[in-house]
Amino acid sequence: MRRQAIVDTSARTFARGGYHATGITELCVANDLGKGALYHYIGSKEQLLAAIHDRVMDEVMLGADRVAEAGGSPSQQLAKLGDELLDVIHRYPDHVWVFLHEFPALTGERAEQFRKRRRQYERRVEAVLQAGVDSGEFRELEPRLTAMAWLGMHNYTYLWLKTGGRLSARDVAKPFADIFMRGIASPIIEGHH
Amino acid sequence: MRRQAIVDTSARTFARGGYHATGITELCVANDLGKGALYHYIGSKEQLLAAIHDRVMDEVMLGADRVAEAGGSPSQQLAKLGDELLDVIHRYPDHVWVFLHEFPALTGERAEQFRKRRRQYERRVEAVLQAGVDSGEFRELEPRLTAMAWLGMHNYTYLWLKTGGRLSARDVAKPFADIFMRGIASPIIEGHH
Repeated sequence: MRRQAIVDTSARTFARGGYHATGITELCVANDLGKGALYHYIGSKEQLLAAIHDRVMDEVMLGADRVAEAGGSPSQQLAKLGDELLDVIHRYPDHVWVFLHEFPALTGERAEQFRKRRRQYERRVEAVLQAGVDSGEFRELEPRLTAMAWLGMHNYTYLWLKTGGRLSARDVAKPFADIFMRGIASPIIEGHH
Repeated sequence: MRRQAIVDTSARTFARGGYHATGITELCVANDLGKGALYHYIGSKEQLLAAIHDRVMDEVMLGADRVAEAGGSPSQQLAKLGDELLDVIHRYPDHVWVFLHEFPALTGERAEQFRKRRRQYERRVEAVLQAGVDSGEFRELEPRLTAMAWLGMHNYTYLWLKTGGRLSARDVAKPFADIFMRGIASPIIEGHH
């Protein structure tokens, strides 16, 4: 679809030059389109930015839905959430860069929509953590803070996990899951003290 | 010192408007200085950006030096590194925002210097992890990948850990250390399988 191709190309352009510093003229050149045609497809520069954010959130939520449908224990679900999240980061490095760096440029309804979707995903992670606490699989923990630790560990890979790089998403997801799952496993193990 | 105050004020200005989109005129207004005076203190806009990066790295390395001087077991050192890192993120939210978002704008020697210092810190974390493996305190792990997991978990707090916020740096450092230390502790515990 033409619009989707424009969104993808523009993600790369924004990732390289920054959203504010990238003008419509540069977007026209990158997409090989005239101003009128570009505006026809994207509406406005901010709508384009919102579309890049949606592209990331769509993929991330699709992954979370697959995990929920597959079911399994909270540990299994958390590991699969990690696989899915790193897969998106690995496949969409430019979109994710823009997603994480340029979200403050979204305004009004679009900013609200973005916050809502992001929060919706965080709640999925929190729910899996809480389910693990309830089942006794995970130790007592604060789901919100623990979800932020988990998200940070995974999201931050956007700085070094690249399409075509030495490491696959799976190469990273596995050891990360090992650390995190042992870190929150019940019963409380204090073997190192 | 006047120059340091300019660096701090400009960090806030860049954090709000973005480095590329912020002109010298805005920096003059924010610092209440004329162009000549501003250039006298900062040299160039890129030198100012480098000074913001240095401010963060200076603080982070000071913390790492304190940890090394205090000594203790690898677990204790890793926990203290976390305390120190979150303390910097908590005290310098604007600087850290600029540090993490605008480093690609550094060029040539300054980009090289930044990469070197960042790598130097990562090596400290890796060395503590390796020391823990060598002493048998931590399980067998890949120090580089594990350091990136640790860094991600901590660095990513810049999005929500704010000066004057509900949570102190310590409120976050403690549960994060609990997760991470259990996650890499030896012997291998698989209580949840």
